[in-house]
Amino acid sequence: MRELAISLDAEGSRPLYEQIYSYIKHEIQEGQLLPGERLPSSRSLSSSLEVSRSTVDLAYEQLVSEGYLDAVPYKGYYVCRIEGLYSLDSGKVQEKEKREETDSPWDYDLTPNGIDLDSFPYDVWRKLTRNVLLDDKRELFQLGDPRGEWELRETISRYLHQARGVSCRPEQVVLGAGNDYLLMLLSAVLGTGHRVAMESPTYKHAYRIFEQLGFSLTTVPVDAQGMSVEQLEASGADTAYVMPSHQYPLGVVMPIKRRLELLKWASEREDRYLIEDDYDSEFRYKGKPIPALQGSDRNGRVIYLGTFSKSIAPGIRISYLVLPEALVKECGKRLLRFSSTVSRIDQIVLNRFIQEGYFERHLNRMRRIYGRKHDILLGELRRLSGVCRIRGENAGVHLLAEFPGGMPEEKIIRRAEEQRVRVYPLSEYTIGESRERKSGAAVLLGYATLSEQELIEAADRLVRAWGPG
Amino acid sequence: MRELAISLDAEGSRPLYEQIYSYIKHEIQEGQLLPGERLPSSRSLSSSLEVSRSTVDLAYEQLVSEGYLDAVPYKGYYVCRIEGLYSLDSGKVQEKEKREETDSPWDYDLTPNGIDLDSFPYDVWRKLTRNVLLDDKRELFQLGDPRGEWELRETISRYLHQARGVSCRPEQVVLGAGNDYLLMLLSAVLGTGHRVAMESPTYKHAYRIFEQLGFSLTTVPVDAQGMSVEQLEASGADTAYVMPSHQYPLGVVMPIKRRLELLKWASEREDRYLIEDDYDSEFRYKGKPIPALQGSDRNGRVIYLGTFSKSIAPGIRISYLVLPEALVKECGKRLLRFSSTVSRIDQIVLNRFIQEGYFERHLNRMRRIYGRKHDILLGELRRLSGVCRIRGENAGVHLLAEFPGGMPEEKIIRRAEEQRVRVYPLSEYTIGESRERKSGAAVLLGYATLSEQELIEAADRLVRAWGPG
Repeated sequence: MRELAISLDAEGSRPLYEQIYSYIKHEIQEGQLLPGERLPSSRSLSSSLEVSRSTVDLAYEQLVSEGYLDAVPYKGYYVCRIEGLYSLDSGKVQEKEKREETDSPWDYDLTPNGIDLDSFPYDVWRKLTRNVLLDDKRELFQLGDPRGEWELRETISRYLHQARGVSCRPEQVVLGAGNDYLLMLLSAVLGTGHRVAMESPTYKHAYRIFEQLGFSLTTVPVDAQGMSVEQLEASGADTAYVMPSHQYPLGVVMPIKRRLELLKWASEREDRYLIEDDYDSEFRYKGKPIPALQGSDRNGRVIYLGTFSKSIAPGIRISYLVLPEALVKECGKRLLRFSSTVSRIDQIVLNRFIQEGYFERHLNRMRRIYGRKHDILLGELRRLSGVCRIRGENAGVHLLAEFPGGMPEEKIIRRAEEQRVRVYPLSEYTIGESRERKSGAAVLLGYATLSEQELIEAADRLVRAWGPG
Repeated sequence: MRELAISLDAEGSRPLYEQIYSYIKHEIQEGQLLPGERLPSSRSLSSSLEVSRSTVDLAYEQLVSEGYLDAVPYKGYYVCRIEGLYSLDSGKVQEKEKREETDSPWDYDLTPNGIDLDSFPYDVWRKLTRNVLLDDKRELFQLGDPRGEWELRETISRYLHQARGVSCRPEQVVLGAGNDYLLMLLSAVLGTGHRVAMESPTYKHAYRIFEQLGFSLTTVPVDAQGMSVEQLEASGADTAYVMPSHQYPLGVVMPIKRRLELLKWASEREDRYLIEDDYDSEFRYKGKPIPALQGSDRNGRVIYLGTFSKSIAPGIRISYLVLPEALVKECGKRLLRFSSTVSRIDQIVLNRFIQEGYFERHLNRMRRIYGRKHDILLGELRRLSGVCRIRGENAGVHLLAEFPGGMPEEKIIRRAEEQRVRVYPLSEYTIGESRERKSGAAVLLGYATLSEQELIEAADRLVRAWGPG
């Protein structure tokens, strides 16, 4: 048995027992204390170190529980064989943060994809997370229902009914970590034998996901009412991916007549489906919300896809599918094979966020904030009325600027660029052939991520860039 | 303008401003206050309610921010048109918890799948989560790198190097919400054209996932060294799914010779891969840890699959792939298409858990706990030495009981069942034909979820069930 020459730092921030623990652990790892070697009794070590005996006991117990020491009754503590014990050198993370401060070529980026996170209720989210963890339900660390927690699915189905006119039971709701994952899940459950028609222009990301998943794809033009049903029929597709409440990127709202035509098309064959992507329908600034297509579906042909990425934040990674009843029956078992991709803690936090009224408040607040930004940008750009037509549709988080006068897209972009403003060409959202628009070039102007003042300044630059000057 | 007859509860737990806010909101929603109607000034309302003026101001501001009221300078507050405002009736969640207390037919369930959550460091996890949220980095609520946060991928690659002998750069690590998802991702990126050979018996869940994803599948028997390379060659498969460090469910450890044969097989053609599922290699109780196959791979043929489901908890939903360099180059772009399925907050919490030494401590503690349980169950079952042979392999969280005497599986299960002990027939892990084992029936006995005392009692029952009595 050996003296342990531990020099304790009584003033330091680390508790004394932890200093003893670390010292002994280090000595064992370095081979300074050998397997089988006996340690001083806690009584003798505590007196030589001038600390309380319980401090030493605590350190010894910790070392026993981690397998460094063996406690032999009536004998004392012995060093274990540590072969195979984990000793992870956490090192210093190399400061990899070479945030190369790449001089951005833009002063204002009018991206149509971001959201405004300045108004995110961080405190509420933090409080709810802390409370969920405090409840200390250890089952939250076990695997949950592959389709998601029942309570949250119930809350979502109630929300969808009230806010979106979706009619569904919680059994039809399937949670997943983002839309990409849910499309993957759909492909695994439905098979990739379907031929999917996408709107053109469309949300290109979804197009690429379908493509990568091995679906056969086609595009169908969007007219002033939405996807052309005649051309859908002609395309040979059996599944149509549509955004009836607010088409991305055009902003078209599909009127009831076209909706009924689409539903009729889908009901004509057993294997036809409509995938309704209702990505940002929470944000409509004037008039009543446009109800979801799903609510008018009497034949169980609509697969509804919703997300909290726009209405709360993309980082929380929670989206959901609402499947038709028949599909739940048919594919339920296959669905259950894939473990849930959303942690149960996150699900419970979200459930409380909605249940306790925070979601309602947040939506109303964001609706107001985005509505003001929409109005400001639209108002500022009125000065360009001779040059382009701005369409806002009082919804979503971007405007569309159309240039009927024939200014070529490349020039529109370049002039904005010269003013260090980034705008997004509509042609980027068009797939395949028909990239030339008869109605002239157009660009997307997103307003979610900039402040009101920044929007005014960006608009000024655009007036300089495009104005008749 | 109207008097507001708000009756405040000064003793209640709800702040006064919130009571005023709720009252007015309710009146607007119910149509008792009409659009365009002017509200009392905050001065007059505060005096009539006998509260401070700032209390009323706070309530009014909240209502303005949520779009219920308009503040008109020099005039006052007016009720907005609320058409389209969200009003979610959160109702009471119907107490759906019909936990039907289904009388379990088992007193002891020796499941090989659970983990011991009694020793999970809840306090640490809670503390880390709180701290991560307190840092208030709002970018955590934005989408992150599709492959996962750089810091965590760096930490994992360092951990894998130290603990598993895996050699990789952080660039090769791809995070995902569970193994099922990662196999999905792999199928989307590699295509499902591959023919996958699974060990038999094997982890049937993975088999079903591959099946559902549309892969062509075959099985190859496991001998005392692991998957038979001769039969793998004959199977026509180009991808082999193996568990070299601790085969599930047999517990076989693949010796170096077989590993080299497998690697040689894989290197013979460009499209051949080995998927190494290293699911529970953290738990080895005697001798050195068995290094991963990946570490011996000189030709970039091994796709390594790791998880924190066993080593931390399944509920946290974090697994990872380590891709060969060439595959990263080839598929990197395709990988980037799929948004990450793990929230950034969870990633940062896990990163700190590892960085700050908690993971090391937790692994060592669990290794000790599981090791003791392993020894206890093994020791107790020695009494059955005339009847069955117990194999523990000093690893994992289950034992294998083989009955060379010819007792039929059905009888083994039934007798245990009569003692209200649940055991798991090995035949369940076998796919297709070869369900009859020459060496006799066998069952799996998991020991992770039961306490030491429960294990002793369960073993007693098994001795009664199977003993020569």
